[in-house]
Formats: sequence, C-alpha cells, structure tokens
Amino acid sequence: MSFFKKLNEHVLTQPVLEINLNRLIENYELLRKIISPAIPSAVVKDDAYGIGAKIVSKTLYERAGCRHFWVAHALEAERIVDDLPEATIYVLQGVGEDNIELFRKYKFTPVISSPEMFDFWKKHEIKEVKPVIHIETGLNRLGFRENELKKLSNKDLQMFSLVMSHLACADEKDHFMNQHQLERFKALKEKYFKGLPATLSASDGAFLGEDFCFDMVRLGAAMYGINTAPYRENQMKNLICLKAPVLQISDLNKGEFVGYSATYRANTKRKIAILSIGYGDGLPRSLSNVGKVFFKALGKWSEARVLGRVSMDNLICDVTNVDNLKVGDFGYLIMDDYTLDDIARDAGTISYEIMSRIGKNTRYARKYILNAR
Amino acid sequence: MSFFKKLNEHVLTQPVLEINLNRLIENYELLRKIISPAIPSAVVKDDAYGIGAKIVSKTLYERAGCRHFWVAHALEAERIVDDLPEATIYVLQGVGEDNIELFRKYKFTPVISSPEMFDFWKKHEIKEVKPVIHIETGLNRLGFRENELKKLSNKDLQMFSLVMSHLACADEKDHFMNQHQLERFKALKEKYFKGLPATLSASDGAFLGEDFCFDMVRLGAAMYGINTAPYRENQMKNLICLKAPVLQISDLNKGEFVGYSATYRANTKRKIAILSIGYGDGLPRSLSNVGKVFFKALGKWSEARVLGRVSMDNLICDVTNVDNLKVGDFGYLIMDDYTLDDIARDAGTISYEIMSRIGKNTRYARKYILNAR
Repeated sequence: MSFFKKLNEHVLTQPVLEINLNRLIENYELLRKIISPAIPSAVVKDDAYGIGAKIVSKTLYERAGCRHFWVAHALEAERIVDDLPEATIYVLQGVGEDNIELFRKYKFTPVISSPEMFDFWKKHEIKEVKPVIHIETGLNRLGFRENELKKLSNKDLQMFSLVMSHLACADEKDHFMNQHQLERFKALKEKYFKGLPATLSASDGAFLGEDFCFDMVRLGAAMYGINTAPYRENQMKNLICLKAPVLQISDLNKGEFVGYSATYRANTKRKIAILSIGYGDGLPRSLSNVGKVFFKALGKWSEARVLGRVSMDNLICDVTNVDNLKVGDFGYLIMDDYTLDDIARDAGTISYEIMSRIGKNTRYARKYILNAR
Repeated sequence: MSFFKKLNEHVLTQPVLEINLNRLIENYELLRKIISPAIPSAVVKDDAYGIGAKIVSKTLYERAGCRHFWVAHALEAERIVDDLPEATIYVLQGVGEDNIELFRKYKFTPVISSPEMFDFWKKHEIKEVKPVIHIETGLNRLGFRENELKKLSNKDLQMFSLVMSHLACADEKDHFMNQHQLERFKALKEKYFKGLPATLSASDGAFLGEDFCFDMVRLGAAMYGINTAPYRENQMKNLICLKAPVLQISDLNKGEFVGYSATYRANTKRKIAILSIGYGDGLPRSLSNVGKVFFKALGKWSEARVLGRVSMDNLICDVTNVDNLKVGDFGYLIMDDYTLDDIARDAGTISYEIMSRIGKNTRYARKYILNAR
C-alpha cells in the first residue's frame, strides 16, 4: 500500500460563513417585547454590521413587520430601498452636497446633527421629508449642543419628525452617564421639542428600562446576537458560524518556530494544523498566539490555541490534543459556544468590530439560514 | 445677520479613498530592477490587499507587462482572469473539492502544499496544468516537510512547474531565520527538484540580495507602498490617500467626556471635530485615544489626536490647535506624510492588515488615479 492510499480524499480550501436569519427574527421579536410599547426599528448601517444589509432588511420587513431602518450613509439606504416600499429609512450621517440627490430621488429621512447641516437642508429642503434632529446629551459626538438649539426659531423647531440622542455608556447598567444623559434628553426635549416623538436608546439602552425607550428604540447589536448588557447572561441568540478547512497537519519538533517573525517556539513536540483563513478574511491579527479554534468530533468539541502570528490567508493552531483530526475537517472560529463576544474578548476589541470586519470579505462560501414560510 | 448666515455651505458626508495606480507601476518597475534577473510576479490575493484585484492586475498586465499573478483562492483568480489572457495565475491555497471546477474551466495553476492535496490532484489532474509545489523551510505554515518529499516518486517529482517556499523573518535583515531558510531551500531544491525553476521570496525577501531571488520573486506589500525593509528608509511610494469630511465642530468643556464608555475626559477646554469615518470603514478601533488626523490649510499640515473610542461611523479628534477649520473640510487618515506604515504603528498592527481592512469597504467614494497612455 502506497503512502497516499492511506490518505483521505477530503480536501477543501474555502472558509464558510453561515448567518442564521431565523435567529435574527427571534432576537428582534424578543427585543420588541422588551421595549414595548416603544416601536422597534432596525439599525442596518455598515452593511448590517457586515452580514448583509439587503437580506437583513428584507427579512425584517417581510417576516417581522419592521418599518423603520437606520443607515449611516445615503448610499447604504439606496442599496436596501427597493425591498422596503413602505419603510422609513433614516440616514445618520445626514445630508450634504455629496448625497442630496439620493434624498431627492428616494425621500430618505436625514438626521440633522449640526447648524451647518440644518442650514444646508433649509436651502435644499425636500417637501415630503421631515428630518430627524440629533441632540447632544453627553457622548460629545454628533448632535446640536444647547447653545445651538437656542438659536433655532419656532419655525425651525417645527420642521422635524423625531428627536434623537445616543447613549455613551449604556452597556454599563450603573454608569452615572446613563442617568445624566436621560435627564438631559428629557429636559431638552421638554424645552425645545415638546410633543415630538423621541428616540434615545440603541440595543444597549433597551435593557435599561422603560424610561430609556421613549417612542422608538434603534435595535442593532443585540438583534445580531451581541450581548449589549454584559453585566448579565446574554438573552440573544448567536447568528454567526464561521469555519475554515484544515489544509495541512504537521508535526512541530522541539525548538522549531511558527509563523512570521518566529513569535512562537515549540518547547515540546507539538502537532499543528494550518487553516485556510486569516486576517484577509477579517479575523483580527490580534488573535496571534492567543486566539482559539474549535474542532468537533463525535459530538464533542476540542479546543486548540492559535500559534504564532495570524497571517493574511492562514492561521496555525496547536492540535496536539485534538483526536482524529484530518485534512479537510473544519476548524470553527465563531459558533454558538464561542460567540462574537468571546472572540472579541480574546482579540482585545468589541463584538461590533469583529462583525463589521468578518462579513465584508468575499472569499467565504456564504450561507444564509432562513426557514421557508 | 442671522446665526446661519455666518455658516459655510460646504457640507459633506462621505469618506474618500484615493488609490494611485501610477505609483503602483513605479513601485513595480523599481522592484523589477532590484530583483533582476529574477522575474517579477504580482501578489493580488485578498483583493490586491483590499485595493481592487481586478484593476490592479489589469494595470500591471497592460502597463507593466506582468504575466505572473498570485491569489490565495481560486475564486479570486476567477475575478481577474478575463483581463489577463496570457498570464499564469497561481492559487496559493491550492485545489480541493470545493474549487476543482474553476481549475478545470480556467486552467489556473494550483500550489500543492500537502500530500493529501497532491493525492487529490493526481486523481483529478488537469493535463494542461503543471502545479507548483510548496516546500516548508522554517515558517511552519503550508508546504511539504522533508519526510513527505522523501515519499514522492521520481514521476511525482516531475509533475511540477515551479518549486516555492516562503520566508518567516525577511523584514529583519539580520535574523538568523533568513540564512537558515535559504540554505534549507537550496538543499531541498538540489536534492528533489534540481533544474526546476524556483521562487523563495516575497517583497521583503527582494531586499535581502540576489541569493534570495532565484527565478521569480512574488511582489506584494512593497509594490503597494509598504516598507518591507523597515531597517532602512522606504524606497517605495505611497499609493493610498484616505480622508473623511468634518461633520461638526464643537467646544468641549472642562470635565466633559468623549465617546463610548467615556474613555476621554477633557482636563482643559478643548475644541473637537467629528469626522464621518469609523471602524465600519476599516479604521482599526485600536486607534481610540491614540490615532492621528491631519488637516491641511494654506499648504501646511496640522495634526490632531483622536479622542475617545473610535466608533462604527465616526471618530472625534482634538482640533484645539487647528486653525480655520470648517465643517466640510477633510481630515486625512492616510496620506504621503502619514502612510500605511505610520497608521499601522499607531494602531499596534502591520500595514498589511490596515490595507486589507480599509479597501473592502463600500461607503467610500473610491477614486483610482492612472494617467492616460
């Protein structure tokens, strides 16, 4: 029997990204209950945090009755508008010379966050559209400051359909900023926008109680499965499964190095697996020497440590204690027992950034899971 | 005169990514001279490190006579093949069940890196194609180990068109691994692949001298302007200009906080600018509180520090000392005086990862600069 006769035939090269849209709907429905009677709206900016704004919006529109969507840029609104005939699409970065035509064509709703932008809007106003006004309450990012609100005329103040602000620390339940921003928002709303519908919270604010929900909540991260209330167990379901095939399995002798700049050295003999995925597929390079890969055999998970630097197309992990592993088997980078929150912790960042990076890559076999109706 | 009369009309919302393909050609030509008489080849995997594999390959093919291209995955080869009728396209992750059809259709050249993959190839061989064999010399990533080479028959050894390996530490001129890998590559080539064309070096190896260049060098990072020989001044030209408009300028009072989790506190009164770019556009979130933004006025650059956390769509910077700044002006995140190498250093990673992240985003106005012929 030749050497190669003993080898398996299961050779694969492409990483796989699975996105479970059934769970997206479940998360949305649970959040809808939590924030009730406030209206839910869906944040699908940044291509729905990377997983596909078009299919995410269409699914929420058709399967969950969502009628309010938030994007950052008008061109993101343009990419989803065809599937959302009766929805309102809010554009967070607002309106300017470089996108006014899209607002004219599609009647998107701009979020106006500065006097300059409001001035621009008044000169290019679109009659059918009533913009949102963004007011600043403590994040010190976008939004009118009070000295700017004071300068608005009564007529100006009547031009808006919704007043919004955004919380800075809502993922920390007891952070003083939450109460500070809530009080500030209430006071400014009472003074300048009495009776106008209001939205203060995104996903993280949804868990701070009814006071924070006002008329509408902007659901993003939690809907996508991220724990935006990390002071307690995640109530949301994981949407993402990311896996990559093992291209090669090798022995690593004592004293040998792994990867660029030789940052891992074997102090004892190890067995290593080379996976077909790297930072070119959106995995953070900060997982070098600290990330984890999971392998499933006979219904049981094994855990392997990333060795050396993550490179553009590959990562290497220590499979010394993984039994029965073969070339062509999948290593799992994100799954139900090692979620976005887990990989973000190991990579030293937040789940949002991981999601935003992963989903934009085009080397995956991408699969959406959605039950037939 | 009303408050708004004093404001400018220059309101913009969209970040801009400019890619200078003239400089790509210049870098390629300079590298060609450095590695001569070895043949240059272009690494355009990961969508040409994010800047667009299709236009990069076409430019190098038509303007610089490049006839050898490297991608990681067969589907990446499929995206560029139409513009490269007489080129050889090498696929680094090789061939398997999930991409064999693409090899059959287009006659791409797989890089065979393991006995399992070679076994698969022999069962599905494409007569017109002679693959590359990847041999392991110290990186401990992909490639045949010597105990595996020993098991190849003479007939097996005749099946290849090129033998390759890859250096682990070539960006450190005096690293012992360079000489170790060179000797190992020469010895294995002599023993198993005498007379076969060979390629050992990528961009970084190109600067280690003629010994490292063999018959072909795989030009990637350096061609894109990255300094792959950081022990000396960069000889390559920067290709990338990334800028984003200022959406808003505000005062920050002493004691106020900026951004998520309130990680920046003003200890003195500051002036801040909010830019329309964030990690959703590929900027690393690790630039939080450490990144830099540059503003140009009257031909002079001013430098501003990122304040607080970089968020998905925005970043905030300290423009207290930037004169005459207006809403709609551009802040520069990458430019000739603050290159990929500089932003990577500040973000705690490598230029390759920055490039790979930035270019894949679709919210930019993307501009390619290429002179007419």
